[in-house]
Amino acid sequence: MGELLSKGDLVVGLDIGATKMMAVVFNNKFEALGQCRKRSRKNGQTAEDRIRQIIREALDAVGSPPIRGIGVGSPGPLDPKTGIIIDTPNLGWKNFPLGDTLSKEFGVPVVVDNDVNVGTYGEWRFGDISECEDVVGVFPGTGIGGGIIINRKLLHGFSGAAGEIGHMTLEVDGPYCGCGKRGCLEALASRIAIAKEVAALAAREDAPYVKANCGTDIENMRSGAIAKAIENGEKMVEGVVRRAAYYVGIAVANLINILSPEAVVLGGGLVEAMPDLYLEEVNRAVKEHAMPFLRKGVRIVPAKLGDNAVVLGAAHLIAKRLRAQSKA
Amino acid sequence: MGELLSKGDLVVGLDIGATKMMAVVFNNKFEALGQCRKRSRKNGQTAEDRIRQIIREALDAVGSPPIRGIGVGSPGPLDPKTGIIIDTPNLGWKNFPLGDTLSKEFGVPVVVDNDVNVGTYGEWRFGDISECEDVVGVFPGTGIGGGIIINRKLLHGFSGAAGEIGHMTLEVDGPYCGCGKRGCLEALASRIAIAKEVAALAAREDAPYVKANCGTDIENMRSGAIAKAIENGEKMVEGVVRRAAYYVGIAVANLINILSPEAVVLGGGLVEAMPDLYLEEVNRAVKEHAMPFLRKGVRIVPAKLGDNAVVLGAAHLIAKRLRAQSKA
Repeated sequence: MGELLSKGDLVVGLDIGATKMMAVVFNNKFEALGQCRKRSRKNGQTAEDRIRQIIREALDAVGSPPIRGIGVGSPGPLDPKTGIIIDTPNLGWKNFPLGDTLSKEFGVPVVVDNDVNVGTYGEWRFGDISECEDVVGVFPGTGIGGGIIINRKLLHGFSGAAGEIGHMTLEVDGPYCGCGKRGCLEALASRIAIAKEVAALAAREDAPYVKANCGTDIENMRSGAIAKAIENGEKMVEGVVRRAAYYVGIAVANLINILSPEAVVLGGGLVEAMPDLYLEEVNRAVKEHAMPFLRKGVRIVPAKLGDNAVVLGAAHLIAKRLRAQSKA
Repeated sequence: MGELLSKGDLVVGLDIGATKMMAVVFNNKFEALGQCRKRSRKNGQTAEDRIRQIIREALDAVGSPPIRGIGVGSPGPLDPKTGIIIDTPNLGWKNFPLGDTLSKEFGVPVVVDNDVNVGTYGEWRFGDISECEDVVGVFPGTGIGGGIIINRKLLHGFSGAAGEIGHMTLEVDGPYCGCGKRGCLEALASRIAIAKEVAALAAREDAPYVKANCGTDIENMRSGAIAKAIENGEKMVEGVVRRAAYYVGIAVANLINILSPEAVVLGGGLVEAMPDLYLEEVNRAVKEHAMPFLRKGVRIVPAKLGDNAVVLGAAHLIAKRLRAQSKA
């Protein structure tokens, strides 16, 4: 990929999540030298103070060397041009200038982008599909996020927030979504969409493993527990998950018909817990819903970086920015 | 837009349709100097001979001056990189090197792209939205075509055929589509999808104006006749068209959620026949199905170039190519 950083250059990749945060210090070959990972919230500490502390501790772990820049993946909506977080109630941010705040604190350039964008970018750059020009990432979990790379660049669009594939309408009169409308992919296929069906199965005694291990509370139906129920032969649970995975596949097929990517990366909690099932159903849906000429040769691959996708992607994004600035 | 062509430079824009073909000679300000328009098919003449004749006649009309290049909008699928038409049974083409054929015949560079892409490009370049970076064109008619402009460039993707928005699945168990699958936008909202419902209304005596003027044959239900029936107060016909237009709006909303364009151009036979109805339903659907943050400030505009969109877009595309080559 050409050398973005010079020998001795260090950058920080930061993954800001609603439940955990992680900062990693990388060298010029994107090898992790030190890291710090903590719960996102601590009483009496603002989210921005928490982040400062996490970055400092990651740097302290390697002797507090000077760094060249910081790349950040954060929940949206946000403006990647200005580094302003528009609205993240979980972290108490509204029009918060995260990029400028970190840039002043650490005295280096900062890039901020949506966490799913950054995760897609990381999987693209550091996975087996880095030669592809056009890539789509789909991450079904509690919500369903997406990232789009076109001509080797993240797509932001007019609003800065392109890639909201979780709110693609797939069933006009479908179930209600967290966004207030109906029939979104997320309403049909997120972990919560699956959990409500599985909880109903448990309540009706149609899923005894789930009932015994998770009860009937939707909040207890984690991806791992659902995967275990399927391993234990709960056929109706499997049917529910396959149906949701097939909907993810329809969304992927629509994205193929619209964007014609060369590769699609599937990640997120549900895919990590049940990769074979997801790849099977998504491939089936793509065969049934994408145009033959457009799906020919498209690679559909599971994410492989897990929790490291965002920090790696963020580190690469800031390295690319530094390189572009040094050329300008 | 800066000057792409120099004074005295002429280019040809060619619109290849299944029923008609048109060639127009443009000067460096994209003013039409001469043109030729004919039915696409003539017994005993191949499509390529027909095209040669049409271009020659357009040039003859202005005294056969030398030209700098030819831009072509043609039905797909085709490969815009090589100018090869992959498959257009209507015109008898399979893997036909249209770009090279015309380039040899006329001794100039030729650009070939999908007709809907070229039409979207023309509406973008020569309409009121030329300052927008990211634009989507949606053209409901006999089929439903789409064109996507990202960062001021037509999106082609890995296959070269990105933008097949007519085959976006919107209802998993919906009606059959001409492509063989179910629930595509085209199966829900094309002129044929509308015509079949309107014909059924006529057969049931629920649309007397349609019955009297078009009978019950789907092939007779043209966009203009449907518009007239609505003007004549046929409420059920209006309901059918509004429902189809709303589906187009859902597709537009999905494209806004995915791509975050700054403008959406609506064209095609149905929109030309009923622009107000289409704009109303599409705006309603966008309000209901696109995320507030993504739809904010998006301009949804009717196409304004009509039959000239493709020839103008094609002329601009070849002018841009010539300019890029002269710089290289």
